[in-house]
Amino acid sequence: MASDPSQLQDFCLLPLDAVLVNGFVCKPPMHVTADDFFFSGLDMPGNTSNQLGSKVTQVNVNQIAGLNTLGISLARIDYAPYGLNPPHTHPRATEILTLLEGTLYVGFVTSNTNNGNLLFTKMLKKGDVFVFPEGLIHFQFNYGPTPAVAVAALSSQNPGVITIANAVFGSNPPISDAVLAKAFQVGKDTIKYLQAQFWVDNN
Amino acid sequence: MASDPSQLQDFCLLPLDAVLVNGFVCKPPMHVTADDFFFSGLDMPGNTSNQLGSKVTQVNVNQIAGLNTLGISLARIDYAPYGLNPPHTHPRATEILTLLEGTLYVGFVTSNTNNGNLLFTKMLKKGDVFVFPEGLIHFQFNYGPTPAVAVAALSSQNPGVITIANAVFGSNPPISDAVLAKAFQVGKDTIKYLQAQFWVDNN
Amino acid sequence: MASDPSQLQDFCLLPLDAVLVNGFVCKPPMHVTADDFFFSGLDMPGNTSNQLGSKVTQVNVNQIAGLNTLGISLARIDYAPYGLNPPHTHPRATEILTLLEGTLYVGFVTSNTNNGNLLFTKMLKKGDVFVFPEGLIHFQFNYGPTPAVAVAALSSQNPGVITIANAVFGSNPPISDAVLAKAFQVGKDTIKYLQAQFWVDNN
Amino acid sequence: MASDPSQLQDFCLLPLDAVLVNGFVCKPPMHVTADDFFFSGLDMPGNTSNQLGSKVTQVNVNQIAGLNTLGISLARIDYAPYGLNPPHTHPRATEILTLLEGTLYVGFVTSNTNNGNLLFTKMLKKGDVFVFPEGLIHFQFNYGPTPAVAVAALSSQNPGVITIANAVFGSNPPISDAVLAKAFQVGKDTIKYLQAQFWVDNN
Amino acid sequence: MASDPSQLQDFCLLPLDAVLVNGFVCKPPMHVTADDFFFSGLDMPGNTSNQLGSKVTQVNVNQIAGLNTLGISLARIDYAPYGLNPPHTHPRATEILTLLEGTLYVGFVTSNTNNGNLLFTKMLKKGDVFVFPEGLIHFQFNYGPTPAVAVAALSSQNPGVITIANAVFGSNPPISDAVLAKAFQVGKDTIKYLQAQFWVDNN
Amino acid sequence: MASDPSQLQDFCLLPLDAVLVNGFVCKPPMHVTADDFFFSGLDMPGNTSNQLGSKVTQVNVNQIAGLNTLGISLARIDYAPYGLNPPHTHPRATEILTLLEGTLYVGFVTSNTNNGNLLFTKMLKKGDVFVFPEGLIHFQFNYGPTPAVAVAALSSQNPGVITIANAVFGSNPPISDAVLAKAFQVGKDTIKYLQAQFWVDNN
Repeated sequence: MASDPSQLQDFCLLPLDAVLVNGFVCKPPMHVTADDFFFSGLDMPGNTSNQLGSKVTQVNVNQIAGLNTLGISLARIDYAPYGLNPPHTHPRATEILTLLEGTLYVGFVTSNTNNGNLLFTKMLKKGDVFVFPEGLIHFQFNYGPTPAVAVAALSSQNPGVITIANAVFGSNPPISDAVLAKAFQVGKDTIKYLQAQFWVDNN
Repeated sequence: MASDPSQLQDFCLLPLDAVLVNGFVCKPPMHVTADDFFFSGLDMPGNTSNQLGSKVTQVNVNQIAGLNTLGISLARIDYAPYGLNPPHTHPRATEILTLLEGTLYVGFVTSNTNNGNLLFTKMLKKGDVFVFPEGLIHFQFNYGPTPAVAVAALSSQNPGVITIANAVFGSNPPISDAVLAKAFQVGKDTIKYLQAQFWVDNN
Repeated sequence: MASDPSQLQDFCLLPLDAVLVNGFVCKPPMHVTADDFFFSGLDMPGNTSNQLGSKVTQVNVNQIAGLNTLGISLARIDYAPYGLNPPHTHPRATEILTLLEGTLYVGFVTSNTNNGNLLFTKMLKKGDVFVFPEGLIHFQFNYGPTPAVAVAALSSQNPGVITIANAVFGSNPPISDAVLAKAFQVGKDTIKYLQAQFWVDNN
Repeated sequence: MASDPSQLQDFCLLPLDAVLVNGFVCKPPMHVTADDFFFSGLDMPGNTSNQLGSKVTQVNVNQIAGLNTLGISLARIDYAPYGLNPPHTHPRATEILTLLEGTLYVGFVTSNTNNGNLLFTKMLKKGDVFVFPEGLIHFQFNYGPTPAVAVAALSSQNPGVITIANAVFGSNPPISDAVLAKAFQVGKDTIKYLQAQFWVDNN
Repeated sequence: MASDPSQLQDFCLLPLDAVLVNGFVCKPPMHVTADDFFFSGLDMPGNTSNQLGSKVTQVNVNQIAGLNTLGISLARIDYAPYGLNPPHTHPRATEILTLLEGTLYVGFVTSNTNNGNLLFTKMLKKGDVFVFPEGLIHFQFNYGPTPAVAVAALSSQNPGVITIANAVFGSNPPISDAVLAKAFQVGKDTIKYLQAQFWVDNN
Repeated sequence: MASDPSQLQDFCLLPLDAVLVNGFVCKPPMHVTADDFFFSGLDMPGNTSNQLGSKVTQVNVNQIAGLNTLGISLARIDYAPYGLNPPHTHPRATEILTLLEGTLYVGFVTSNTNNGNLLFTKMLKKGDVFVFPEGLIHFQFNYGPTPAVAVAALSSQNPGVITIANAVFGSNPPISDAVLAKAFQVGKDTIKYLQAQFWVDNN
């Protein structure tokens, strides 16, 4: 995915006091060190004690300044037993995930087609790899009684995450219930019930 | 958005019997005519007699072969009184819309931020223009008692559409209710109720 | 067309006091509002009382800061009876136009081929759509006795316009008449006559 | 300039019997030889015995199959005494030229600005280098009594050339004289006189 | 990195009998299944019983057809005690690596600067992450007495690998010893000695 | 190669006091002159009195501010008799070279394939052109007793150069001899001998 501007130097680091530019200002090369390309602690389990039972630990340009303009990032995802990384999209990246521990039921849904929105799913075991194409709604669910751990790579230095439930029913401010009632073809009471939930962001 | 490969000729038309390539095979130039860059009928109102009360008439590379590799397309959107173009995303394009007739309540939701998913809305009147950034969930609702008509341009020759309700609650096959119940933090009965609706695709 | 750098955030707005960057500096997200994605007045006819009898009202990143990095823009084009949008190119964008009112004779010319520079033309009526591929010389002429109105979308946030007559015969300073006489293979008197015209920019 | 799709292999050669694809089909690697990256004869002067007194010898993907997807090409340009490479654009490339022999008066015109279309010119002598940004109208004129020779590089494997005079006054079929008379704000007789010239393509 | 053409569909799979295109021909969507996005066995250690004591197990578009056009891939790298993934480059991708087991001494060298070619190194322990910018020479060495295992992500669906020693001293056919002796500023005997080694490709 | 961000203006010049941005800040247009697109002296032979007997004179965005964002640059390469431009890569560009004087033995090596790293070579004479694909190791050697001169174009405004011998055996600080001894499968004495050479940078 051309989700990032091409590089014009070997690297272009985000300085601490960066003005926000689309691609960021570069840190002067003479101030660059190996630590600018380094992150520590991806072996530490994320805290999954939330309603979803999952936690995403991101390693992107916000954690590693050296990723600026390089068009790639990582994430560790922890799943408690029966934990879920709920349906979400990355507006600027494709994701490729490999399962390190446990089992995982994964899937993505295509954009609208003449046959509707097609769901592709797979049950993953340790060592399996699965791809979630850019911009499509996808999820991972740990059916099993044991924790699961995955490493995911994303094709952007800053892929972004849109958790569907949060964006639709938990936005700030809320979307009008008239809009949502018609969109989901249910009564406003059902919408209010959905909006009344507490929306955790597991990222 | 770099939502399309760059062109290598003045144009590269999709032939009738095209093998599906990412960017398509080109029709031989000597067979190209002005009609390959032409579409007719965008003045005709779309049929909005559906549960959403809206209809999107697309003009992309599937309607105009000459758009192949050129990275842009159009759409006409008709809204019955109180009609809705429900929350959806374009996985490969930004949209810029201008309202030709009526009034329209529009909005989009950002990706996850420290302040949650921010909703930006605007009430549009005739002649107003609004932008929906690539990959973000957005909608248009005709609050008014009169029909509304908009023309939208998208930054891809084939932007794709993901209608959130359809993709989440109406996919083929359905997403497991265990996944959806946890994702939306409601009971399976509520999920089954949502999944039981008939999902119209207004595109 | 990859006429714009890819985005690295949901959006990257142009601040009022922007240093000019290729892609612009971003306005801090907490200062962003819906108005940053909004423009008003595209329903107002442009003033066509000029020698060309046409007026282009542009809606690009200079009018809507929120278009920064998003790779698309709009324009409204008004044509007086017998008004002309003269031969021009967009150095960074493809254009797709739809006719809202009246009739319009449109065309573009290919780059040099073994068969010369091929002209593709079409007579458009209300509701017709036509595509002008990136970088090619194109024009629109209102043959009819009634005004015409079109909406055009362009595949860049800042497509640029080069009006051929103005750039060749009305540049500042003028191109040497020795160059132009040889280029157009006519006498310097003809060139001076052409250069003597008053060159209106209808953009 | 992103004038070409990025490569997915070390190289992707155009086979002799290529279907025309945007980026071309690749020749099987086992059939690739050094000759696929080779062209001979750029030391041979082009034949400048034409009305313009110039000749462009192109070395792009049509001459070197190995350039496919690589986004660059070369050209040798010969100028007879007082020879002209007339105003033209490359719709998909920036040009950087270096003068090998003689002297050359060069220039380009910007797109429309508040100050009109700005002309930038320079008199080049042997060893000088000049840049013509993508899509802008530019020319080279040999004022001197001796031949001139330049090598130009272009940022596309297939940059395209639009010779302004040929595209505007010599297209096939011709542009309506009603359009051109209004565009250049002169009488149809002047337009017919311009169209009556014989248009050489020096490429 | 724009190491891949942007996608024009949700996905564009490589069919079994694909003609080699830059971006590949797409498999018809109705034939696509979840298995087209799936790979199994990344939990299996690679065979490191070679002179380098390392093995790279690649998971790119050649293993997962669904990665076509998506601009990302994975690899598992196994290191025997004192095993080395020798100096190499990826001509089309940046790499981000995380260490799953053991310790690893990693480094990359910048392109030529006024201060020479700068070496950046880091000693990694379990859970550490390091970035190797696109096109730069880099290596990983397992100093420790225990095996090490890493997962690396690359910003291309087909990043390519150039093992420096193999490409310089083990090419097929060999590079002239006159060239190498001058390049490395040593006698031809030293070059012949280097060329006489058996060059293993650990990919 | 998409080795540069696409342009958003006709040009975007590097100001003298530029903050280093990936794509650079633009000089205000009203301060731009023809000299910003100009470089002088490419007719002057480079000083080849060094151990390699070659000299590269670069003309990129560091010499011509006007090249900023335009994705192309030039270089003149001088070769003394038996002079060598040693094996190197450009991490961000493809190179196309034409020989102006003398003869030259040129070659490049592919990335790792099932048949190893394939070497493609050619003996060039005056007027010959050869292509070196992006990121691949390549060299030019002047076998002849007379000087040779070439002009090369590169598909980036700032292509970068990695001289293999310097980066591997002459980096600052040096790469551990344990790493290099294993990588090149020779004794540390041979490595120390190689590292003891004086590494000239002919760029």
